[in-house]
Amino acid sequence: MFKRALFLAAVLAAPVWAAPVAPDAAAVATATKLRDQGVASDTGYQLLESLTTEVGQRLAGTEAEARGRDWAAKKMQALGFTNVRIEEFKVPLWVRGVETAEVTAPTPQRLVVTALGHSGATPAAGIEAEVVRFASFDDLVAAPAGSLNGKIAFLDHYMKPTQDGSSYGAFGAVRFVGPSIAASKGAIGVVIRSLGTNDARVAHTGVTDWENALPAVPVTGGSKVVGAKIAPIPAGALSVPDGDLMRQLFARGGPVRMKLVLTPAFKGDGVSGNVIGEIPGRSAPDEIVLIGGHLDSWDLGTGAVDDGAGVVIAMAAAKLIKAQAPQGPRRTVRVVLFGAEEIGGMGGDDYGKRHAGEKHVLAMESDFGADRIWKITSRVADTGIPTVRAMQRVLAPLGINPTTDNANGGGSDLAPIGPTVGMLTLHQDGTHYFDLHHTPDDTFDKVDPAQLAQNVAAYAVTTWLAADSDVAFGPAPAPKK
Amino acid sequence: MFKRALFLAAVLAAPVWAAPVAPDAAAVATATKLRDQGVASDTGYQLLESLTTEVGQRLAGTEAEARGRDWAAKKMQALGFTNVRIEEFKVPLWVRGVETAEVTAPTPQRLVVTALGHSGATPAAGIEAEVVRFASFDDLVAAPAGSLNGKIAFLDHYMKPTQDGSSYGAFGAVRFVGPSIAASKGAIGVVIRSLGTNDARVAHTGVTDWENALPAVPVTGGSKVVGAKIAPIPAGALSVPDGDLMRQLFARGGPVRMKLVLTPAFKGDGVSGNVIGEIPGRSAPDEIVLIGGHLDSWDLGTGAVDDGAGVVIAMAAAKLIKAQAPQGPRRTVRVVLFGAEEIGGMGGDDYGKRHAGEKHVLAMESDFGADRIWKITSRVADTGIPTVRAMQRVLAPLGINPTTDNANGGGSDLAPIGPTVGMLTLHQDGTHYFDLHHTPDDTFDKVDPAQLAQNVAAYAVTTWLAADSDVAFGPAPAPKK
Ligand SMILES: [Zn+2]
Ligand SMILES: [Zn+2]
Ligand SMILES: [Zn+2]
Ligand SMILES: [Zn+2]
Repeated sequence: MFKRALFLAAVLAAPVWAAPVAPDAAAVATATKLRDQGVASDTGYQLLESLTTEVGQRLAGTEAEARGRDWAAKKMQALGFTNVRIEEFKVPLWVRGVETAEVTAPTPQRLVVTALGHSGATPAAGIEAEVVRFASFDDLVAAPAGSLNGKIAFLDHYMKPTQDGSSYGAFGAVRFVGPSIAASKGAIGVVIRSLGTNDARVAHTGVTDWENALPAVPVTGGSKVVGAKIAPIPAGALSVPDGDLMRQLFARGGPVRMKLVLTPAFKGDGVSGNVIGEIPGRSAPDEIVLIGGHLDSWDLGTGAVDDGAGVVIAMAAAKLIKAQAPQGPRRTVRVVLFGAEEIGGMGGDDYGKRHAGEKHVLAMESDFGADRIWKITSRVADTGIPTVRAMQRVLAPLGINPTTDNANGGGSDLAPIGPTVGMLTLHQDGTHYFDLHHTPDDTFDKVDPAQLAQNVAAYAVTTWLAADSDVAFGPAPAPKK
Repeated sequence: MFKRALFLAAVLAAPVWAAPVAPDAAAVATATKLRDQGVASDTGYQLLESLTTEVGQRLAGTEAEARGRDWAAKKMQALGFTNVRIEEFKVPLWVRGVETAEVTAPTPQRLVVTALGHSGATPAAGIEAEVVRFASFDDLVAAPAGSLNGKIAFLDHYMKPTQDGSSYGAFGAVRFVGPSIAASKGAIGVVIRSLGTNDARVAHTGVTDWENALPAVPVTGGSKVVGAKIAPIPAGALSVPDGDLMRQLFARGGPVRMKLVLTPAFKGDGVSGNVIGEIPGRSAPDEIVLIGGHLDSWDLGTGAVDDGAGVVIAMAAAKLIKAQAPQGPRRTVRVVLFGAEEIGGMGGDDYGKRHAGEKHVLAMESDFGADRIWKITSRVADTGIPTVRAMQRVLAPLGINPTTDNANGGGSDLAPIGPTVGMLTLHQDGTHYFDLHHTPDDTFDKVDPAQLAQNVAAYAVTTWLAADSDVAFGPAPAPKK
C-alpha cells in the first residue's frame, strides 16, 4: 500500500508540472544530433592548438592578453559569429621577475619556487631568514601577533586530489589569504606548499589577496596597491616535492633557514578586455543564453587547461549550433570570453556593469579544465527544471551523471550578472586538474581530444535546449554558501 | 616417442652439468631468508631519504659531491662495513649558469630549457638566430657542411618509453654527439628535444660529448676543454612540451627564430672520488664480489632515482648480508659508490686503474632507477651459470623473470675492471625512468618504498649466492655490442 502510493505519486507528479514546459521532440532530436556531432568534432581541439601555439600565455593586462583578444575576435568572425566585439577595461599590471629559493641551513638545497600573483618583491639580492613552518592554515591564524617578526613563513597543508575540486576550496585559504595573515604577524616573506596534487617539480602560482586578511590587520607600510589593506610582502609557492623536502628538514628538529629572491613588480595600469560574439536568436534575440570561459591565463604555461579549454569549448559549441540551425535557436547564444579573471574576476565585473540591463536567461562558464564532464548541476527556477532533466537525458550516454542538485550553478565570472539569473554547471572531472593548474605544465599536450570533444558536445546540447526554448530559468534560488 | 625423448633429455640434462657446482641447500636457504628480509626492510628507503634531504644534488667535482662522500663514508661505518675509504681523483668542473630560451618569431613564446653538461656558453645577453629543425639524427648527419652557419639547430626525435630502456640507446645520439655535429656544420647554438618520455614541462640535462663528433671535424676555435676535438657551443635541452610546440610552429611553414641564453662555465679542476666499504670474506677475502652505484648526480634534482637508488640498494643489500652472516660470506662483498659517472665515467676509470690487480669475481651496478626489477641477465663463464639459475629461482616469486640471456651484464662504471670479469644485470623496469632522468623531478617522492625494497632483496640474494660460493664467474664472454 505504501509502495503503491509512492508509485502513483511518482507517475502523477511528472505530468502535473513538468510535461507542459519540457522541450518538444524536435528540440530534443536536434540536441541529440548536436551531441553526436560534438563528440565527433575536432573544432575545439584545433582552436586550442591554434591559441596555445600562435598566442601562448595571456597574462592579464599584458600585450600577450591583447594578442589573445585579437585571436579570439578573428576566430569568432571566421566561425560566423555576429556582433563580434572587444570591450576593454583597465587592470593593475603585475609582472614576474627573478625567482629563486634555497635552503641555506641545515644543508644547502635549491628549491623550485614561483611568485604568487600580486606578490611583493625582495631586494634584488634577496632576503635570508629563519623559516617558521605552519602545518595548517588554522595554526597560522592562531600564531600570536609579532611572532613572525623578521621570519619567513612556510605554509604547509595536506591538499589531495578530488574529482569535484573541493580540496581547492578546503585548502585554498593558504594561498588566497595566508600571505597577508603572515605579513600581519610580522613575516618578511612567505612560501606556501603549492596548491598542487601530484609530485611534479613545478610551482603553482595564482593570485594572493592583500585586501582580505583574516583577522583584519593594519597596513604596515612598504609598497602598496590601490585599495590594499596590507602591504604586499614577497610571497611564493614551492613545488610539492620541495614542500616534502621542507617537511623532512623540519622533521629533523633544527632551525631551517632560507634565502628567497622574488622580484615581481606592479607596473601601473594595463588594458584587459572581454571578447563577445553571438549566434543571434531567430525570434527572441533579446533573450540571452550566455556561455563562456576566461581568455586570460597565468604566464607560466600556455593557458591550455586554464582556461583555453573553456574558451574553445564555448566557441566550438556555438559553432555547432550555428551549423545545425542556420536561422539560430529561438534565443541568442552569446559567447563571452572574459579577461583578467585570474587576477580577481575583473572581466566578469566589467561585463556585469555594462550588460546589467539585458535579459540573461541562463549562463554557464567552463573554467575547470578539459577532462570529461561527469555531472550537471543547476541553480534555476522550477520552471526550468524539466529542461534541465531533458539535457541530462540526452547527455547520460556520454557518461554524464544526471543529478537533482539545483543548488549549484554558476562560475567565477557570472556572479556580477545577477544572483537570480539561471545557471548550470557542467562539472569537469577535476582529479588531475590541480596537477597542472597555474603551472608551467599547463600546456596543449595535456589535453585529450576525446575528452575535450565530450565537453563541446555537452555544452552544445545544454546551450541549444536552453536557447531553443521559451521557458524561464530564473529567478534562480540563491547560490549555495 | 619424440616427446618422451625430449622429456628424458630434460630430466637428465640438469644433473649432468649443473648439480656439481650449484649452490648448496644452506646457501639457498640463507638467500631465501635474505629475499624475505629484503622486501620487508626499509633500510634502503631511509638511507635515500637521508641522502636526498641532508645532501641533495651531488654534481661531479663540486663541494656537494664531497658532502655526499662524507655522508656515504659515515653511513657505511654506521652500517658496520669495514675498510671504509674514499679514493679521490680530479675531474673537470663544469657549473650551470643562467638558462633561458624564447621563440621570438613567428610569435613570442617562452621555452623551458636547461644546458647540457659541458655545454659552451652564450654571451650574457644571449644569441638570437633562425632555427633549423632536424626531424632525426640522420637528417643532421646528412646536412651539408656550412649549412648551419649562424643558425641554431633544433634536434627533434621520437623517443618513447620502453621497459628495457632501449629507446635511450636508439635516440641518445641526439644528445651525446648531436651538438658537436651541429657545431661542425656551423651552428652557433643547439637545442635538442629532451630525451624524455612523458609530458612534464622539465628539461633533461646530461653530458654532451665534444670529442667524438661524427664525422670527425676540425677544432674551430673558441673555448676548449682538454682533449676536445671541437669547441663547445651553447647546447641545451627543451622540455618535451616545448619540443611539441616547436614542432607545431615549424608545421606552420614560416621561419622560426629563437633567443637563447646559456651561461655555464668550466672552472678548471674539481675533486671527485669513489667511496668503498666491505663485508670481508670469511675464508677467501681476496676474492671480491663488487656491487655499487654512482654517488654523483646531475644538479637539477636531488639525484634520488639517478643514482641515489643504486647507492642505497647496494648499501642496504650488503647490510642485510652482514646481519644474516656476521662472519661474512666466503668471499668479500665490496660496495663501491662511484664518483663522476655522469660526466664521463671517471669514477669507474679511476677504480679500474687502482684496483686492476685484484681478484674481481663478479660485479653488478645498479644505475637504472628504483622501479621493480623484472629480469636478470648475465655475462658469466659456464661455471657460473648454475648459480645464476639458483639466483633466478629464489627471485622468481618477486616477479623477476628468469632468462637464459648470458650476453648482457655490466654497468657503465664496471667496464674498466676488465671485460672478462663476470657480470650480472638486474634490470629495473625503465618504463618511467626517462620521465625523471636528469631533470628537476628526480626527487625522493618519486621512489616507491615497496619497489625499492624489492631491489634490495634482489641484490642481497644475488650478492650472497655469488659471495658464499667458490665457483668461477669469469672469464666471461665478451660484452654484446
Ligand atoms: Zn580559470
Ligand atoms: Zn586559474
Ligand atoms: Zn646514472
Ligand atoms: Zn645519469
